[in-house]
Amino acid sequence: MPYINIKVTDENVTRDQKKKLIEGVTDLMVEVLQKNPATTHVVIDEVPVDNWGVNSKMYSEKFKKS
Amino acid sequence: MPYINIKVTDENVTRDQKKKLIEGVTDLMVEVLQKNPATTHVVIDEVPVDNWGVNSKMYSEKFKKS
Amino acid sequence: MPYINIKVTDENVTRDQKKKLIEGVTDLMVEVLQKNPATTHVVIDEVPVDNWGVNSKMYSEKFKKS
Amino acid sequence: MPYINIKVTDENVTRDQKKKLIEGVTDLMVEVLQKNPATTHVVIDEVPVDNWGVNSKMYSEKFKKS
Amino acid sequence: MPYINIKVTDENVTRDQKKKLIEGVTDLMVEVLQKNPATTHVVIDEVPVDNWGVNSKMYSEKFKKS
Amino acid sequence: MPYINIKVTDENVTRDQKKKLIEGVTDLMVEVLQKNPATTHVVIDEVPVDNWGVNSKMYSEKFKKS
Repeated sequence: MPYINIKVTDENVTRDQKKKLIEGVTDLMVEVLQKNPATTHVVIDEVPVDNWGVNSKMYSEKFKKS
Repeated sequence: MPYINIKVTDENVTRDQKKKLIEGVTDLMVEVLQKNPATTHVVIDEVPVDNWGVNSKMYSEKFKKS
Repeated sequence: MPYINIKVTDENVTRDQKKKLIEGVTDLMVEVLQKNPATTHVVIDEVPVDNWGVNSKMYSEKFKKS
Repeated sequence: MPYINIKVTDENVTRDQKKKLIEGVTDLMVEVLQKNPATTHVVIDEVPVDNWGVNSKMYSEKFKKS
Repeated sequence: MPYINIKVTDENVTRDQKKKLIEGVTDLMVEVLQKNPATTHVVIDEVPVDNWGVNSKMYSEKFKKS
Repeated sequence: MPYINIKVTDENVTRDQKKKLIEGVTDLMVEVLQKNPATTHVVIDEVPVDNWGVNSKMYSEKFKKS
């Protein structure tokens, strides 16, 4: 506890970026809610760009960057 | 807002079918709840057939079509 | 199978609207993917307006309608 | 896009803490992944302490702080 | 790790039943996957019966027991 | 109903282990909550070891077994 799930489009998120996301979210839980980092879990889901829709369009069709 | 997550077994869902799911779900949010399509997000997860269980069986073992 | 989760802000979604969401999403699964309605599950989560953030703001602070 | 879901136990998380979580997570998406804050959604779920288990125990039974 | 989310309709699940679910799921992770119970998290979501649909109907309308 | 989602790191979970997870979770729903196995759905997500963080570290960096 806590458990944080990050969903982003699968567009070459690097290992270094994943590390920064995990560290940043964990730090936030410690600072804002005084949670224990040892029990803070972060799961990153990379969603294929054809499988994410916004504004009634596939992300792969509509967006270059969001 | 809103956010809709569709989970189906991974059985050759085509790009055209994904488009129709995204459009159909977004239309529904607009019609029923007057949501803004620009902020309506749809994420489709395709789950491997060995990873979905129903009636205590793997989908890959039991079902041909559901 | 399939399983669809709809997350909207908790702003007086009526019972009739919930029925229409369930029917509409189920119809979509049948029409687009030929799924069996008997095994199509839809779960609606109504999220308190203080618990949904977009554009770095609480929904309750920023948006009147989205 | 992206979509972040934070699950914590329901223990009097204040409105100010929720604001800080939303701002902190959104900033992280902008800094690390160059995402657009306008399309970054954060949903906070507060889980009753009887409904979260860790180490085979209810959170309400075992933990004072985690 | 691991993280298990159980979604059931909100129909008077007792505290004792929640304990048994948490223990049972945790035991399963230990036995089948040799996971560490100390890092096994279980979250139970009780979904209002008007918010769960199956076979194109609200659970509250159609089912007495499932 | 019910719906159970199991998230584990992607570390060679075998087909036999998946079967045991599906059977074990389904049995638990029947025994503890008298649910109908025919409508009990279990979805297993295998998360890449670089995408799971705990204690502010990637699982792939920190843990050998958890």
